[in-house]
Amino acid sequence: MKARLLLGCPAAVLVDVSHSVPAFDVISGAFVLWAGTREFGPGAVHLAVVDPGVGGSRRAVAFPLDGAWYVGPDNGLFGLVLARSAGAPAWAIELRRPEGASPTFEGRDVFAPAAAALAAGRAPESLGSPLAGPLAPLPVSGPAVLWVDRFGNLVTNLEPPVTGLRVNGREVTAAARTFSEAPPGVPFLYVGSTGYVEVAVRESRADDLLGARAGVTVEPF
Amino acid sequence: MKARLLLGCPAAVLVDVSHSVPAFDVISGAFVLWAGTREFGPGAVHLAVVDPGVGGSRRAVAFPLDGAWYVGPDNGLFGLVLARSAGAPAWAIELRRPEGASPTFEGRDVFAPAAAALAAGRAPESLGSPLAGPLAPLPVSGPAVLWVDRFGNLVTNLEPPVTGLRVNGREVTAAARTFSEAPPGVPFLYVGSTGYVEVAVRESRADDLLGARAGVTVEPF
Amino acid sequence: MKARLLLGCPAAVLVDVSHSVPAFDVISGAFVLWAGTREFGPGAVHLAVVDPGVGGSRRAVAFPLDGAWYVGPDNGLFGLVLARSAGAPAWAIELRRPEGASPTFEGRDVFAPAAAALAAGRAPESLGSPLAGPLAPLPVSGPAVLWVDRFGNLVTNLEPPVTGLRVNGREVTAAARTFSEAPPGVPFLYVGSTGYVEVAVRESRADDLLGARAGVTVEPF
Repeated sequence: MKARLLLGCPAAVLVDVSHSVPAFDVISGAFVLWAGTREFGPGAVHLAVVDPGVGGSRRAVAFPLDGAWYVGPDNGLFGLVLARSAGAPAWAIELRRPEGASPTFEGRDVFAPAAAALAAGRAPESLGSPLAGPLAPLPVSGPAVLWVDRFGNLVTNLEPPVTGLRVNGREVTAAARTFSEAPPGVPFLYVGSTGYVEVAVRESRADDLLGARAGVTVEPF
Repeated sequence: MKARLLLGCPAAVLVDVSHSVPAFDVISGAFVLWAGTREFGPGAVHLAVVDPGVGGSRRAVAFPLDGAWYVGPDNGLFGLVLARSAGAPAWAIELRRPEGASPTFEGRDVFAPAAAALAAGRAPESLGSPLAGPLAPLPVSGPAVLWVDRFGNLVTNLEPPVTGLRVNGREVTAAARTFSEAPPGVPFLYVGSTGYVEVAVRESRADDLLGARAGVTVEPF
Repeated sequence: MKARLLLGCPAAVLVDVSHSVPAFDVISGAFVLWAGTREFGPGAVHLAVVDPGVGGSRRAVAFPLDGAWYVGPDNGLFGLVLARSAGAPAWAIELRRPEGASPTFEGRDVFAPAAAALAAGRAPESLGSPLAGPLAPLPVSGPAVLWVDRFGNLVTNLEPPVTGLRVNGREVTAAARTFSEAPPGVPFLYVGSTGYVEVAVRESRADDLLGARAGVTVEPF
C-alpha cells in the first residue's frame, strides 16, 4: 500500500497512525480512525482499511471532512467520524483494477491508488460517481466499549458525567482525574484524552479484569 | 539503523515495509521482501536483515534489480526476489567497520551505511568487490508455506489452479474467490494478493487450525 | 502526537525509533532512548513518553545534548542519556494547555507541541523556565538487566569483561563473540551492539529460560 501511495503521489508524507486495530474489528477501527485523525487538520488524506467483507457488496468510498479526505470501505468504519458531520457528500470509488489485481487486497489495488490521487490533487470525480444516501453507521448502538487501548483501558462512547458503570455485571464507581490519583488494583472511571468516559486499572489491565473488549455494551447508573 | 540511513542520505524517505517477520525466519523474510518491495518501482533501495548467522561466514551483499537496489545478508533472504531474475550482478559489501562496531549488529554498522550510500547515488564499487557465482537460494524446496500473515492465512508457493491441498495430514478442498464468499470456520483455498494459492479460514486462523507455519511442506492433489 | 508534531513543524521528518517498550517500564524506556537516539547526530529532537505518573507531580522537561534536544517526563526516563553528560542545562515545559486538553495524554497536549516548537527552531525559553538542580536518575542501582530485546536477549548495564553472571540464581559462564559461534540452547555472555554485556540463547529466548526482565538485578562473579 505504501508503494502505491508513493507511486501515485511521490511527495506524500506517510504517517502510520496505528498498527493496533485487531483483525476484522470495525468498531475499534472506527474509534482509532476518529481519535487518530481529528488532529491532523486540513490537507490530510486518511486511508483506512478494516474490511472483513473485502470482495463483497460493501462500497468503496471517499468523502471530504473539514478540509481532509477519508478513503476506505463503507462498512461502518466511518461511523464515528461521520457522527459529527451529517450529510457530507461522498463518492463511490470505481477505479478500474490493474491487470492481475487481487480480489482480496483492495487496500493495495483500490484504496491506496484512490488516496494517492486525492493527495496529488486530483478531483474526486476522477475516482467515480457521487453517492446518494448516507454512508453506513457504526455497528453498535447504545452505551458500549469502543476501544481497548494497549494498556487495557476501556474507552466508552459515554460523555461525562458518569457516576457509575456496569461492565459485564461488575459495578465501577471509583473515579479519578489522573492515573497518579487512582489507587492501584481497582477499576476506576475517568475522562480520557478523547473526552469520553474510560475505565482503567492503574498499572494493570481493565480489559482482563472486567472481561471486556470493543463492542461490549455497558450500563451507566 | 534509521539514524545511520539518515546520516548517510539525509534526503532519504524511510518506509517501514513490515515489522512482522518472526525472529530468525529467513523464509518468511524472503516472502515479505518479495511481496513488499516489488511495487515500489525504480529508484528504491530495499534494506533487509533477517540474519540468524550474523557474524558468521555468510556474505553481505548488494545487487540491483529492475532499477532498485537490494542490500542484506546472503543467506537465502533474497531467494524469492532472485527467482524471477537469474544472473543479476552483485557486489560484496566490504565496508570498514567504524571503531567500536559490534559483531552482532551488522544491520546498523554494515547494511544501513551501504544502503544509505547507494540511496545517495554512490557506485556499488565504493562498497566492495563484484561477486562471482550466484547468491544463496531460498532454503525451501518443493511445495511449501512461505508466509503466515497476521490473520493466520497460509501463503504457499503454488500457482493456481490447485484443487486440493494436504497440510499436516488434513485435506483442504473448499475454494472461494473472496472472503465474503467463504463459509465461516472451514479452511478454504483461494488465490491471494500475490498470485499464489493461500489457505484461510474466514474470521479465524488457518495456522492454528492446521498447525502450520512458514517452511511447512504441503501436498497438492 | 504525530499530528501535533506536523502541525507545529510541517517540515519535520518523523522517525519511529521503537514501539517495543513495555507499558509503564521506565527502565526499558531509558535504555531504548539511549541506544536508539545516540546515532542520530546534531539537529534531532527526541520525544519520549513512558509516563506511569502522568498528571502527577513529575516535571515535564526539555534539554539539549550534543546538539540534539530531548523532550519528555522527568521520571528517570533520561537517566541513561544523562549518565554520560552531567550538568546539562534543562527547561521546564510550562505550555498552556489548549482548551479541552486531557490530563491523561500529555504526550499529545504538552510534549509533542514542545518538541515541534524546538524542531521548528524556537528557543527553549518559549517553552518555560530554566530548571535548577539535576534531572531524575535511572530508577535502578547496581548491576541489572536494562532491556529485553525482541529476541529475548538480556542487555545489562555491565561493561566487559565479565567472566560469569548470576541471573535469578543461575550461573552463566559460557561466552561467545557472535551468535554463529554460540552453541544452541545454552545461555551465553557476549558484548552487545551497545557495548554492554548481554545474555542470549542462540535461536531461543534468554528471558524465558532465566525468568528475567528489565530491572532484575544480576551478580557478576
